[in-house]
Amino acid sequence: MSEAHAEDGPRLRDLSEEDLLDRIFPYFVQREDVLVPPGDDAAVLRAASGSVVATTDTMVLGHDWRDEWSTPAEVGSKLVTQNVADIAAMGARPTGLLVTLAAHGDLPARWAEEFSLGVASQAERYDVSVVGGDLSGAPDGVVMVSITALGDLEGRDPVLRSGARVGDVLAVHGSLGWSGAGWWLYAQGGTDPGPPEPCPVRPAEAEPPTGWTEQSARSVLMWSHRTPVTSVSSGVVASLAGATAMMDLSDGLVRDAGRIARASGVGIDLDRASLERDFVAPPLTDALPLDVAWTQVLTGGEEHSLVATFPADSPLLRDQSDPDGRWWVVGRVVEADDARPRVTLDGEAIQGQGWDHFAG
Amino acid sequence: MSEAHAEDGPRLRDLSEEDLLDRIFPYFVQREDVLVPPGDDAAVLRAASGSVVATTDTMVLGHDWRDEWSTPAEVGSKLVTQNVADIAAMGARPTGLLVTLAAHGDLPARWAEEFSLGVASQAERYDVSVVGGDLSGAPDGVVMVSITALGDLEGRDPVLRSGARVGDVLAVHGSLGWSGAGWWLYAQGGTDPGPPEPCPVRPAEAEPPTGWTEQSARSVLMWSHRTPVTSVSSGVVASLAGATAMMDLSDGLVRDAGRIARASGVGIDLDRASLERDFVAPPLTDALPLDVAWTQVLTGGEEHSLVATFPADSPLLRDQSDPDGRWWVVGRVVEADDARPRVTLDGEAIQGQGWDHFAG
Repeated sequence: MSEAHAEDGPRLRDLSEEDLLDRIFPYFVQREDVLVPPGDDAAVLRAASGSVVATTDTMVLGHDWRDEWSTPAEVGSKLVTQNVADIAAMGARPTGLLVTLAAHGDLPARWAEEFSLGVASQAERYDVSVVGGDLSGAPDGVVMVSITALGDLEGRDPVLRSGARVGDVLAVHGSLGWSGAGWWLYAQGGTDPGPPEPCPVRPAEAEPPTGWTEQSARSVLMWSHRTPVTSVSSGVVASLAGATAMMDLSDGLVRDAGRIARASGVGIDLDRASLERDFVAPPLTDALPLDVAWTQVLTGGEEHSLVATFPADSPLLRDQSDPDGRWWVVGRVVEADDARPRVTLDGEAIQGQGWDHFAG
Repeated sequence: MSEAHAEDGPRLRDLSEEDLLDRIFPYFVQREDVLVPPGDDAAVLRAASGSVVATTDTMVLGHDWRDEWSTPAEVGSKLVTQNVADIAAMGARPTGLLVTLAAHGDLPARWAEEFSLGVASQAERYDVSVVGGDLSGAPDGVVMVSITALGDLEGRDPVLRSGARVGDVLAVHGSLGWSGAGWWLYAQGGTDPGPPEPCPVRPAEAEPPTGWTEQSARSVLMWSHRTPVTSVSSGVVASLAGATAMMDLSDGLVRDAGRIARASGVGIDLDRASLERDFVAPPLTDALPLDVAWTQVLTGGEEHSLVATFPADSPLLRDQSDPDGRWWVVGRVVEADDARPRVTLDGEAIQGQGWDHFAG
């Protein structure tokens, strides 16, 4: 142990891989889908419906998180959500996670333990098992975490990006721009106001929740940046209800809608009035200037809400029974037109990233 | 493009993720097991037998390879083999790979392309598709590559580490200590003598191949360090032939046999005469001092040969029809004895890592 940091406990270099695994493994519950748990050359997971859905996502210290903003548990939580959201966006349920940590030897073992706890608690939320992983050394200062998520379609067809049809509507499940707004608040030098109250999951009622203070609004947005969430059950329900295309929102509404539009060979026209009423609203407008709120709603990344296209008469669009929130229509699928961008707002091109024209 | 390195072509930072994927994707052939190829939120792979085998392994520049020893293609090739060997060691066939590259922006795009080519060509060898992955930035100087491999048991039970029974024999498929010997030659300051001749796959005949020169021996050993190989079909055949426990050799015969012994609650006694006759032999003994050859046979890592236990009367142990080589008996499974280490050599403790007692 380095004496200068004795108060932090042992470093990774002070522990054997086995010692570290002994500290981490107890966090990981093995569900009944796991036929061979971690500890052998490979894990074996049930894939009852005869196929497996697979995705992987990586986070690197300094690129994807900052230690002064995010705790190790929050990094683990966010990494799980990023991966699970990709499974959910296919209409599948996650069944297993493989977790990799590559880190320099001076990293406190406690960091790895708290990261694992964040992974485990978010895995619990999504009812998925951690079935394997890898620990690796890395150069000084480097911490890199990676997850591969596996999922099961349970007999459903996957919901691809390519199925949107002209006449469908585009709808969003969950928040828009909250994570990006949190990032913006941090980048402005904002300090963490602590865990948010009230509950940050947007409820299903027709109107956004009221009663935010600037403090509680900042709190929920910064929390959303550190620990975004997705909804597996809402992805499954969307698939059952006939969603024609679906994605999770990783890179912002405009870019991700553009991916659906390109894959489907269509255009997507966003509806300004719907976005303004349902999303450019508290808590965003309590914590941000209006132009920044618009920017984040349209382009804020790492939200991991779901965006999907549905036949316009889908009953799901009127359903308010999902405790994780409802699907909000924000646009419609139109013919692709070489004279217009793939994604428009009230039929107009969306200029740049600054959204100054929304400021007034 | 950095002018100082203009001759290397564009750097990662000069390309969009899409540009880079356009350069890499054509290398990756999608086999019929792939139901949804890369490009959506997640891939979908057939898992016909109702389960999926999963493992992950990571390599970090400076920790797991050196650019002065290994080409980018060799790093990709080795990473594939490491992961596929874990699938093979369960008696499964690999069906899909997810490949992650996290690298600093100054890395030549050509590095990523050559790495991908190495992944693709080794994936071709093992008949497995690259179905997904992730590209990520990383701090200056950092290059990290990671693969998750998925596999299918095709209805067979997995061959675990825990099934060895007293009376079984321990057998090795493939070489022992070649990769470790290559590492030792590099560490001694050896320069790469170029691609090896003759074919480095050990043939199935009873005697090790003869006719090595020191030069050809060094060449094949250094090549084995850069591009170890495993044999999927031999793992499948071992499973069908009733192997009771199996692993791939990642950390050396003694450590990995110890893992089988602990998981199975038994001891393993290695046979000195068999090891000496079949493994402490050319090309090792043409390129290394005898004590180093013994050390590498017993403890050399990253070999990715298979080691398994079988009932002593298994006909597979006499089979010489596998073009990838036969199974060589190197020990037997004995009762665990608290007075002895888990793994012994002719009933004696194996002292330290130096093997000086073998030098004479």
